[in-house]
Amino acid sequence: MADRHRPSAAAEANPVRLHDKQNERDYRELRIDKVGVRGLRFPIQVRDKAHAVQNTVATIGLYVDLPKEFKGTHMSRFIEVLNAHGAMVHVENIPDILHAMQRKLHAATAHLEMEFPYFIEKHAPVSGLMGVMDYTARFEAAACGDEIDFVLGVVVAVTTLCPCSKAISRHGAHNQRGHVTVRLRSRETVWIEDVVAMVERSASCELYSLLKRQDEKAVTERAYENPVFVEDLVRNVALELNANPVVTWYQVEAENFESIHNHNAYACIAKH
Amino acid sequence: MADRHRPSAAAEANPVRLHDKQNERDYRELRIDKVGVRGLRFPIQVRDKAHAVQNTVATIGLYVDLPKEFKGTHMSRFIEVLNAHGAMVHVENIPDILHAMQRKLHAATAHLEMEFPYFIEKHAPVSGLMGVMDYTARFEAAACGDEIDFVLGVVVAVTTLCPCSKAISRHGAHNQRGHVTVRLRSRETVWIEDVVAMVERSASCELYSLLKRQDEKAVTERAYENPVFVEDLVRNVALELNANPVVTWYQVEAENFESIHNHNAYACIAKH
Amino acid sequence: MADRHRPSAAAEANPVRLHDKQNERDYRELRIDKVGVRGLRFPIQVRDKAHAVQNTVATIGLYVDLPKEFKGTHMSRFIEVLNAHGAMVHVENIPDILHAMQRKLHAATAHLEMEFPYFIEKHAPVSGLMGVMDYTARFEAAACGDEIDFVLGVVVAVTTLCPCSKAISRHGAHNQRGHVTVRLRSRETVWIEDVVAMVERSASCELYSLLKRQDEKAVTERAYENPVFVEDLVRNVALELNANPVVTWYQVEAENFESIHNHNAYACIAKH
Amino acid sequence: MADRHRPSAAAEANPVRLHDKQNERDYRELRIDKVGVRGLRFPIQVRDKAHAVQNTVATIGLYVDLPKEFKGTHMSRFIEVLNAHGAMVHVENIPDILHAMQRKLHAATAHLEMEFPYFIEKHAPVSGLMGVMDYTARFEAAACGDEIDFVLGVVVAVTTLCPCSKAISRHGAHNQRGHVTVRLRSRETVWIEDVVAMVERSASCELYSLLKRQDEKAVTERAYENPVFVEDLVRNVALELNANPVVTWYQVEAENFESIHNHNAYACIAKH
Repeated sequence: MADRHRPSAAAEANPVRLHDKQNERDYRELRIDKVGVRGLRFPIQVRDKAHAVQNTVATIGLYVDLPKEFKGTHMSRFIEVLNAHGAMVHVENIPDILHAMQRKLHAATAHLEMEFPYFIEKHAPVSGLMGVMDYTARFEAAACGDEIDFVLGVVVAVTTLCPCSKAISRHGAHNQRGHVTVRLRSRETVWIEDVVAMVERSASCELYSLLKRQDEKAVTERAYENPVFVEDLVRNVALELNANPVVTWYQVEAENFESIHNHNAYACIAKH
Repeated sequence: MADRHRPSAAAEANPVRLHDKQNERDYRELRIDKVGVRGLRFPIQVRDKAHAVQNTVATIGLYVDLPKEFKGTHMSRFIEVLNAHGAMVHVENIPDILHAMQRKLHAATAHLEMEFPYFIEKHAPVSGLMGVMDYTARFEAAACGDEIDFVLGVVVAVTTLCPCSKAISRHGAHNQRGHVTVRLRSRETVWIEDVVAMVERSASCELYSLLKRQDEKAVTERAYENPVFVEDLVRNVALELNANPVVTWYQVEAENFESIHNHNAYACIAKH
Repeated sequence: MADRHRPSAAAEANPVRLHDKQNERDYRELRIDKVGVRGLRFPIQVRDKAHAVQNTVATIGLYVDLPKEFKGTHMSRFIEVLNAHGAMVHVENIPDILHAMQRKLHAATAHLEMEFPYFIEKHAPVSGLMGVMDYTARFEAAACGDEIDFVLGVVVAVTTLCPCSKAISRHGAHNQRGHVTVRLRSRETVWIEDVVAMVERSASCELYSLLKRQDEKAVTERAYENPVFVEDLVRNVALELNANPVVTWYQVEAENFESIHNHNAYACIAKH
Repeated sequence: MADRHRPSAAAEANPVRLHDKQNERDYRELRIDKVGVRGLRFPIQVRDKAHAVQNTVATIGLYVDLPKEFKGTHMSRFIEVLNAHGAMVHVENIPDILHAMQRKLHAATAHLEMEFPYFIEKHAPVSGLMGVMDYTARFEAAACGDEIDFVLGVVVAVTTLCPCSKAISRHGAHNQRGHVTVRLRSRETVWIEDVVAMVERSASCELYSLLKRQDEKAVTERAYENPVFVEDLVRNVALELNANPVVTWYQVEAENFESIHNHNAYACIAKH
């Protein structure tokens, strides 16, 4: 065991000469579609529609392709690219991050995925009291050569009240929290806030963090007067997206955490 | 590097002489409360009230104490004890598993934790159609010398309908799925099924996997006629547990996934 | 709306006459791609290569398409189809479940997703002691008219040891648990066990639930002698899949929970 | 019940007269230990040792006790208290939040739990390059009358290398990511950074987000030269906490995501 502990003088003296295993020639003749890092928590600033900048924490994935000739990619360079572009992330500088990854990693394609909580201040419907509602936003961006593909994702929690339950019951109707996930491509920037608003007006009622008694009355009644199935929810959102000329592609999913079952109702509609 | 790859003939020939690092003397003078394995998925059979035996999959933790003199425990022995007691786990053989851990690991105390999905067949309230409802059960067992401590835990998903929302609104009332977690100690075996029944009659309505239209009408109306706050839910369950002479200790928690908020309502009551 | 609150004597007497809200005509002109239930926990039996039948617990999703004319699907029918086909699920009866969904829900397409823990008995490499290793399996099946599409997914946890770390360090090399996820389409049934074996021989070492000291020595040395990057791992598996004439499509992902970082290394390769 | 369905003109005109269901007398004679809200995502600022202020996102729980005379608590007041104290949370203003909850909710006891990602800049050990490492911090605070109880929790991810595997193997040693969770009470403020440092020097090696090749060599060798069992890890941290005169209570847990198993090794030690 002693041998193993004795440092090699040469290696110690010149750390830059450490063997670059990743750069070795690979003979399996297999190109790798995506290789990189994921599950990285990173504090970021995002531009929002109201306040210019919002602080939050993202979970990030960064990937490139790897040509068949190379044994491995250089994982530390992904972190260096991220660090170099600072904490401010917005739709406008994502192409820079992607192109920097392509350059630093000698790659044809580069991918960035990030998911983060996003907050919007809201006034309760009757009392007008202000509260902060949380949403989940996702960016899925890719560069292939010069071309950038960008998918905006937003997860919005809403109230859904069952039209069938209302129609057949003497009183009341089962309702529950549901999650709507919108993913879209667009010709121009679409704000997270605008996707949120679109989803919230498509549901039985929107959620609030702060509701006083008069507000609770209002949201209960609004939900009862606007019953929607998961099917209605995805169709309502799809109708709005179809009517929006800047949106070129979308996928809308809704999942209701049914209050009468221990499983969920789900619907999905996509623009093909 | 060649050296490192050449097997030592002596070590190879006599694997039983491999150094027992864990058995070394420790000088930090610190007894360890619990040491062992966790996050182990394992297929088990559990005895149920109706069918005698139910197949399911548990996530298991096994621990012992470690006296201050020893550097480490022997992790493989936990798995050997588990394997030796076969796939059939029930309240009656848990003491055997704990005592086997004490013996094999020379420990004063032993702990077993297991959590598993548990299924109960249920008939829909009007159509009578049969469906299977899933619950989560937990065993937390410990042996200290000869004495056994056993805590049964059951998580039951239910419907809760808000009394305030009903009282103040012209029509409807917000309702949602909620989770009730009961943990209890008892003088005699308490069946998971009996805890489930206790919780289900304390809620606005119980859940079903299969509901036809006439059933949906029935559960909607039943929930509307039995509004409960999280506070009511934990008190209703606590009242039943107080009335049960075999129950010596309990903790009841309720968490409602509010349909009007993106956060949850929570209440907890314990017998002290 | 007052009417709805007054119980209709007729409706009460004849529950089969309850209004079928879902069957109403929809005018939004939007076909829904997938609608149904998800997150349903269900006890199943799966046929395995060794023992004929294995008991486990699945999390299930069931969906159909919905033509643009209809307001909603009938959620309870998904559960009825599942109940009707009993607890025994295997590759051979999945087409029956899908076709039953198409029939009962008047749908052109039907989808079934299920994920479940899957167990394989393994002998430790030197001591030969038997332990049970857990894997995660997934079925993603769809029927479009008469045609069936079936994707088998398997998640295998393995040891990976970093070739770069080994090459540049005087002694040792960082290693960690990694997850390999294989998804494949095939002309004939491919056993979960065969996918597991393929992945395990592509990694630095396979995992075991039970290892005695001589086994631990063996797996430590085997991993050190077989360093693999995530890139190597996905390429090794892809090579095997390319060589298998029954496999018509695959996607291989590897994610290493790096022991030197708090983020993960990831690679993905697909047959296009 | 009919009344409740007919909108009361007075109630509409004067929302403050809406019935206060929660204030009703309860006759079950059961005090509730904790009732409130949980799972609330909220942007906060935390004071750190280096930069004065750090932006992050917390998941928050707020609870009070409820005397046996009252039917329910007033959930919206928890959010109002949180909003009133702004986004800046630090150890010094937590007593204010707790006392405000006691006052606004007429409660004897109040509880605040929050968990959030926490970031520390670190220089790689050889290259000196800067990266950001993420940790998880938790505050568990309670007020009982005037008295405040505060538990600081920190989860630190580290490298652990197995002493047994190293001792018995010709070369290499299995190592993995592990999580150490420290919870402590203290006479004076203890910084998250100081807990992190204590844990990191107790492990085989600390983690970094950014490591170049010479750094990877250094951390690989450092881990190989400092093997620790989970038992060593919790004892090393406990020794440091015992030596710290401001610490009055602690619990230290370690969980290793073993690279040779699909389950984890776990140890726990507490100051009694």
